Amino acid sequence: MAKKSPLAPERFPTLPAVSGVELGVAEAGLKYRQRADVTFIRLSEGSQAAGVFTQSAVPGAPVVWSRAALAATGGKVRALVVNAGNANVFTGHEGEHASAETARAAAELVGCSAEEVMISSTGVIGEPLDHTAITKVLPNIAFSDAAWEAAAEAIGTTDTYAKGAAARTQIDGVEVTISGIAKGSGMIEPNMATMLGYIFTDAAISAKALDGLLRDATETSFNAITVDSDTSTSDTLLLIATGQAANSMILDPGDDRLGAFRQALTDVATSLAHQIVRDGEGASKFITIDVAGAKDDHEAKIVAKSVANSPLVKTAIAGEDANWGRVVMAVGKAGVPLDRNHLAISFGGILVSKGGGLAPEYDEQRATAHLKGQEISIEIDIGPGQGRATVWTCDLTHDYISINADYRS
Amino acid sequence: MAKKSPLAPERFPTLPAVSGVELGVAEAGLKYRQRADVTFIRLSEGSQAAGVFTQSAVPGAPVVWSRAALAATGGKVRALVVNAGNANVFTGHEGEHASAETARAAAELVGCSAEEVMISSTGVIGEPLDHTAITKVLPNIAFSDAAWEAAAEAIGTTDTYAKGAAARTQIDGVEVTISGIAKGSGMIEPNMATMLGYIFTDAAISAKALDGLLRDATETSFNAITVDSDTSTSDTLLLIATGQAANSMILDPGDDRLGAFRQALTDVATSLAHQIVRDGEGASKFITIDVAGAKDDHEAKIVAKSVANSPLVKTAIAGEDANWGRVVMAVGKAGVPLDRNHLAISFGGILVSKGGGLAPEYDEQRATAHLKGQEISIEIDIGPGQGRATVWTCDLTHDYISINADYRS
Repeated sequence: MAKKSPLAPERFPTLPAVSGVELGVAEAGLKYRQRADVTFIRLSEGSQAAGVFTQSAVPGAPVVWSRAALAATGGKVRALVVNAGNANVFTGHEGEHASAETARAAAELVGCSAEEVMISSTGVIGEPLDHTAITKVLPNIAFSDAAWEAAAEAIGTTDTYAKGAAARTQIDGVEVTISGIAKGSGMIEPNMATMLGYIFTDAAISAKALDGLLRDATETSFNAITVDSDTSTSDTLLLIATGQAANSMILDPGDDRLGAFRQALTDVATSLAHQIVRDGEGASKFITIDVAGAKDDHEAKIVAKSVANSPLVKTAIAGEDANWGRVVMAVGKAGVPLDRNHLAISFGGILVSKGGGLAPEYDEQRATAHLKGQEISIEIDIGPGQGRATVWTCDLTHDYISINADYRS
Repeated sequence: MAKKSPLAPERFPTLPAVSGVELGVAEAGLKYRQRADVTFIRLSEGSQAAGVFTQSAVPGAPVVWSRAALAATGGKVRALVVNAGNANVFTGHEGEHASAETARAAAELVGCSAEEVMISSTGVIGEPLDHTAITKVLPNIAFSDAAWEAAAEAIGTTDTYAKGAAARTQIDGVEVTISGIAKGSGMIEPNMATMLGYIFTDAAISAKALDGLLRDATETSFNAITVDSDTSTSDTLLLIATGQAANSMILDPGDDRLGAFRQALTDVATSLAHQIVRDGEGASKFITIDVAGAKDDHEAKIVAKSVANSPLVKTAIAGEDANWGRVVMAVGKAGVPLDRNHLAISFGGILVSKGGGLAPEYDEQRATAHLKGQEISIEIDIGPGQGRATVWTCDLTHDYISINADYRS
């Protein structure tokens, strides 16, 4: 991995084992040398899954495979194979064949149907994937219920640190565990999911209920982050429940007994999403954008994303410049109608502008001091409405250019 | 001005005088030192104008003024005052007062009503504009019908060279002239206009006919460029006809006698738009993106803009990397449905991919050689439709970051 992001957490968190989940990694040498690039995860019989995937019009073969497999089995899943270094996107029929053959090989080892194997690939687009390099190493993989960090590392590409999050909660009085891993870190403006994220629980929850839980949790976590406004062709987020905990099976996503679980899942998803932003290519600042006063939450999110994706806002923050005029510009271009005289902007709680102009009490020194920190917040009030949204992003720096002007070569 | 863009034309073109148009500049010292920052243009009696302006929800006071003034007079115009260094945006009622007072001072000097004076301001957003610095220098300005380059320089901010274009054509057998100037060069994804552009003609054309001509010419010129996806609060493009040429007045934009004029106007607008892209902040490559095979021209433009605004595509080109996978990604995220097997991508006429994968005849060395040039073209065929669009942009380089991380301070 490259030099660690300055926004990285101190260490990989301790992720508890999830009963029914075993993880293993191997080196297939697809692109990287001397690091694991294949992750194989076995799931106990009866495991249920839900997934959200990229909305790209040219999704990768693994996305096409996994989406179809989930639909075919109604959410039954027994294994997951992920490779890094080659995204197997825009690789024609051979690419589809590569995903299918990888699933078949894993299925044979696990003793299930190929459709019960989820496939993900991440890395370069448009280069043929030699699936035999993957299937060759699968049989010798050693499994452990503790290998979270190894798995989180093996799914990474330009990531500078491994990403994981966990929670313990209860369903109907029964203790359940949630552990998840994810990877970023460029081509990140997920639209239904991040590049790759996997969240596991031992709770007994049906595929249908998982689907509702996952969509809700995604909206305010993975779908509320952006690094560079580029939506990947490989975005995949899976929520898998092994059902090994002793709770009685939950069938409905609206079940009252899911209250604490729903919150714990959202916390894990939000933590993973933040970790992706904190490893955004070239990031030196973590930026939280809160928009309030919109007509509804949807319009608030449009405004927040417009600010979060503005290169001029992101470079101003990289330069530690309290250039609130660029925030005004980005709010204005969002396409959401607003009354200029209602617009108020704060940096880190310091009111900068309101009523169509500079706030009389504005203290630029205090705003600049806030911008010199690593955790930046921008609060925007656009009107009298009740709609709110929070979006997270990072700044745009020289390192983003360096990383992306020569990533492939 | 900063170091000249490597994509700059060799010299400012020779712009012919337009009968009825006189230009002058002065130093008001609003932000810059030792350069002209105020431009005052006088127009002969009977001049007609049409304008297109930013669609930002927070337009600057000068945009609000000019839009309302044009509506009030039905397109009668006698003068134009432009200042650089302060955009007079989000400056509250005082900002509106500053624009109105500037117009009043110019009107008194010219002998017209304040509403016959167009106002533009460009520069920093959100700082109060001291209009007395402008009105103080107006009375002493010396006018000339040849001061195009001085005017084009005086309206610039981060521009590294002055931008101008001209054409001579005929209306109904009568020789007419078109001369125009414009400025960029960041916060550029115009939506109805560029930051600032002014095109003058001596033809006799009514305000209503000018409006139709201007909207048509804008769609494939200023509205088909992007530097950084950020739409300015100050975008203004004016088309002014003094009526000093001897053609009989044209009242209808669809008039058959406008055929050659329409083409000449589009040529001037396209040249100015290209000059803005060639001076895009940090630009080292000029990129033409042609999309064909869409359902209609509108969908083609959405796809072309998605590619043109992708930071990953723009950094790959900066790195001279034929990373066509990123073009696939950017096409896929545009939100336009397409059949992957119809998608074909070429760089500089060299077919890279088709039929859902790499083209068998693809020669990466040839593609890379094309990318080492300064003029890059990307051709994308997305299906069997007749819709087409061309969009122009520049690459995303370290210099963009450098310019924008400390522009204001």
